[in-house]
Amino acid sequence: MFNIEKICVIGGDRRQVYLGELLSADGKFVTFCALEKCAEAAPDYSSMRIAISKCDSVILPMPLSKDGITLNTPLSDTEITLNEEFAEMLRGKRVFCANSAQLKKTGDYSDVFVYDYLAREELAVENAVPTAEGAIAAAIDNTDITLHSSRCLVAGFGRIGKLLARELNALGADVTVSARKPHDLAWISSCGYTAVKTNEISESGSYDIIFNTIPSMIFDRDVLSRTAANAVVIDLASKPGGIDLEACKDLGIKAFAALSLPGKTAPRTAARIIKDTIYNIVREVHP
Amino acid sequence: MFNIEKICVIGGDRRQVYLGELLSADGKFVTFCALEKCAEAAPDYSSMRIAISKCDSVILPMPLSKDGITLNTPLSDTEITLNEEFAEMLRGKRVFCANSAQLKKTGDYSDVFVYDYLAREELAVENAVPTAEGAIAAAIDNTDITLHSSRCLVAGFGRIGKLLARELNALGADVTVSARKPHDLAWISSCGYTAVKTNEISESGSYDIIFNTIPSMIFDRDVLSRTAANAVVIDLASKPGGIDLEACKDLGIKAFAALSLPGKTAPRTAARIIKDTIYNIVREVHP
Amino acid sequence: MFNIEKICVIGGDRRQVYLGELLSADGKFVTFCALEKCAEAAPDYSSMRIAISKCDSVILPMPLSKDGITLNTPLSDTEITLNEEFAEMLRGKRVFCANSAQLKKTGDYSDVFVYDYLAREELAVENAVPTAEGAIAAAIDNTDITLHSSRCLVAGFGRIGKLLARELNALGADVTVSARKPHDLAWISSCGYTAVKTNEISESGSYDIIFNTIPSMIFDRDVLSRTAANAVVIDLASKPGGIDLEACKDLGIKAFAALSLPGKTAPRTAARIIKDTIYNIVREVHP
Amino acid sequence: MFNIEKICVIGGDRRQVYLGELLSADGKFVTFCALEKCAEAAPDYSSMRIAISKCDSVILPMPLSKDGITLNTPLSDTEITLNEEFAEMLRGKRVFCANSAQLKKTGDYSDVFVYDYLAREELAVENAVPTAEGAIAAAIDNTDITLHSSRCLVAGFGRIGKLLARELNALGADVTVSARKPHDLAWISSCGYTAVKTNEISESGSYDIIFNTIPSMIFDRDVLSRTAANAVVIDLASKPGGIDLEACKDLGIKAFAALSLPGKTAPRTAARIIKDTIYNIVREVHP
Repeated sequence: MFNIEKICVIGGDRRQVYLGELLSADGKFVTFCALEKCAEAAPDYSSMRIAISKCDSVILPMPLSKDGITLNTPLSDTEITLNEEFAEMLRGKRVFCANSAQLKKTGDYSDVFVYDYLAREELAVENAVPTAEGAIAAAIDNTDITLHSSRCLVAGFGRIGKLLARELNALGADVTVSARKPHDLAWISSCGYTAVKTNEISESGSYDIIFNTIPSMIFDRDVLSRTAANAVVIDLASKPGGIDLEACKDLGIKAFAALSLPGKTAPRTAARIIKDTIYNIVREVHP
Repeated sequence: MFNIEKICVIGGDRRQVYLGELLSADGKFVTFCALEKCAEAAPDYSSMRIAISKCDSVILPMPLSKDGITLNTPLSDTEITLNEEFAEMLRGKRVFCANSAQLKKTGDYSDVFVYDYLAREELAVENAVPTAEGAIAAAIDNTDITLHSSRCLVAGFGRIGKLLARELNALGADVTVSARKPHDLAWISSCGYTAVKTNEISESGSYDIIFNTIPSMIFDRDVLSRTAANAVVIDLASKPGGIDLEACKDLGIKAFAALSLPGKTAPRTAARIIKDTIYNIVREVHP
Repeated sequence: MFNIEKICVIGGDRRQVYLGELLSADGKFVTFCALEKCAEAAPDYSSMRIAISKCDSVILPMPLSKDGITLNTPLSDTEITLNEEFAEMLRGKRVFCANSAQLKKTGDYSDVFVYDYLAREELAVENAVPTAEGAIAAAIDNTDITLHSSRCLVAGFGRIGKLLARELNALGADVTVSARKPHDLAWISSCGYTAVKTNEISESGSYDIIFNTIPSMIFDRDVLSRTAANAVVIDLASKPGGIDLEACKDLGIKAFAALSLPGKTAPRTAARIIKDTIYNIVREVHP
Repeated sequence: MFNIEKICVIGGDRRQVYLGELLSADGKFVTFCALEKCAEAAPDYSSMRIAISKCDSVILPMPLSKDGITLNTPLSDTEITLNEEFAEMLRGKRVFCANSAQLKKTGDYSDVFVYDYLAREELAVENAVPTAEGAIAAAIDNTDITLHSSRCLVAGFGRIGKLLARELNALGADVTVSARKPHDLAWISSCGYTAVKTNEISESGSYDIIFNTIPSMIFDRDVLSRTAANAVVIDLASKPGGIDLEACKDLGIKAFAALSLPGKTAPRTAARIIKDTIYNIVREVHP
């Protein structure tokens, strides 16, 4: 266990702003950088250098970078290149980031304490809540029927699949969930949903709404034509996803990807989840 | 019990189109009028006269009229005045409409069999499902937190309040419901929600999301300032609603009305509900 | 509104003992009579007379009497006849009882303030909770299958039917509910259960478990033979109930009545419900 | 994949009888042995030898043996010793049993195809359903309050903990669940329950009902005195369990173990689960 008391929050979207506010409400001293469109922030690169120097910890955004070269700073006009100079500014600090491997490639981080909050299982679990809610709102908003009584297929029984199936069921949908392993299929039945083997989806009938959570090509042209003729298809799996969107277009099937839902649908909750995860890291680490 | 076999569907929005399709799928002969932007419909007023003459039944839209003078025909350029001439065309027909009192004021309907599907309790009950889903999507889309763990207040324990509370609870919200009668408060507790008397809402704490279903001024400036300082407030009650939207603006509270949700959020389901209600009328009436 | 401060709790089962304890915990002065097997109580009739005289209020048990002649006192050896002498002792007191009409027939109650807590709707609603739980335990204990995945029929959609259906559904049963009115059938569907008209139960298939809540003969020999061949049948309706138990015996169907469940399955909760109801009466009455 | 067509079901309780019936309903040829109190079975040891010889498969009971020496045969007067002679009878057969390690110690099983259905994850998952239901019935039957509104603690978030928490929550209980790992605690919160670290249970308040699912001593005298003063405590963990029953007695706490619930509370469902597991084994094995 160590302490974080003076924290510099750099870049990112509204989640970072909320995160800073939450930390501040916990009595921490918080400075914002590269967030000037949304928060009172250090106005430029050299102020950022000073701000970092006065803090013990730095929080970098999720995602870390969109191009692999610069920090992700949608709420700022300051461009921050991830390079040796940036690494040097962080020397001796506790740095919490979303993709430590990517960060470490951009400079010498041997004297920086780097922690990856995105790699933590509890963050992934908690993020399933806003993801499931975002998926539910997307389904309500993009269909002309109610979820209630609709035939829904959730492909995949990982974190998001588990929670999404639970909530769809609670809203009165007729829920089928696919998985591969017998014990997952047993769980699906035990939860009261219809279980189908992932490789037998195409023989399982047709659906009104399909949610894919599996990051590999499950819904190819053949499967789509058999199960999704009148469906709305929502891909929740990270790119390249699991749905042949081209085939959907040809077949006249309404389909779209819904990604990064926690930050979009519930940025304040997403910030609270990141904060809790950082606190867990702080508690567990014995440096 | 009587039969409806040849049905003329006139005016209205997509619900009417879906309704015609569902009736057609049940083997009925269906003609559309004043829906030409969305369905193959009789092209003008005189074709409508012929179409009606060939049918035994007519279905008028919900709402019947927006100005009290002409039929509600958003998907058509044909203007249909509700007058003696229109009433004359309907003579001897079974007419299903959404507001029979309003219709009957516009002409002599003594020789028309007029049935009001909007007055049926089962339609109101079933419409609570798409209304609750629309309210849930509106809440997810308009807050920066998850429903899960949020403090939600549902004012009113009628049809919509009952269903909405149930679904919010299922999604993990911390649900408080207001009502006036002791036995309603007992139901609220029995369902696992927190019960609060409607006239004591202002002392019940503050909320993240407030749903009003009561069509009278419950949320005045005083109540809002005590319960809604950081809330999103959604008015589901028909106009004039129960929320002082002016006061919300002054107090910096995000508030909006969400009305006619079934037709907006789930027009196909709304059409199915109207169809079932019409069938119930057909079964029950002994003319 | 009036006050109750000194309360004499007379007769009844463990609920009355818990009720006295709860009132005492609320700061009331409580004396027990005719409960000596379970609580420190006035030892005989003449002590009871003195005890009553020192109190402002008296609580009589539920049920009031099992024979119509004496008070229901299963936890006492004292026999208390409901007669003029008993009425005379209660003169000027607030008397809370379970069946005021029955009580008033046994003496001159013109100078007694008699309140019937059993007649209150909120008590009936709250009692549905322990009744539903008792029914669920009875079903688990008396079948060789799980409720999960079982086909359950709940006949009747009153208070108990509503709550029982909700809980069976939550436990993963496949729930069908019967009702007569279209709007009740609409509610049943809206809640996600299968709806069947009460007079069409016999054509609705067969069930694993049948719960009857309707106090009239629904399950006669014919209906039983078509729906209950392999079922366990539980009658929750007050006597004479709605199940032909004789026919069940002939047909080899396991059937039994489960009555007065709140007092049996959850006497402390049942006492809390009576207390809340008495408090509601106290608040509402303007004597 | 191989086939099982002629099956000899030997020993065990009612589950084995149901299992035989279910297999028979699937078109298998089934013979019973050592079950004569409940099914038409081979009358003695030598008939069993003949019965086995005519079958391709044998199903041994759960548990296999209660003394480690003889087969578990509560529904028979025939004593079957697990020895070399018994192993010899099974030579060349497919043998499905509940504890293959124990069985193999009793003789030479090198020429027997032994499959352990109890070792399968999906059986463990599915058995959580009847276990949770049995626990719920035990709680309803052994408390004087309703589960609804009661404060329940579920210690452990494995299969049974997950399902039990879900069902208690659905019945309106106020559910706290303990676990050790941050991601399990995150799951618990995501499901809407209160999360507590297992080693901080004693500081988490007091409960009305405590369910233990952890097979190690969690509820010692100290923890019990702080959390369970007025609780009913139910141990669902296999022996030696996780509750100091001696301390419960001293502290006046009502406590008991509830074990082998699937076979007791739902033997027919338990049989179906074993059957499905055997079929999974049959499908997967490529001998």
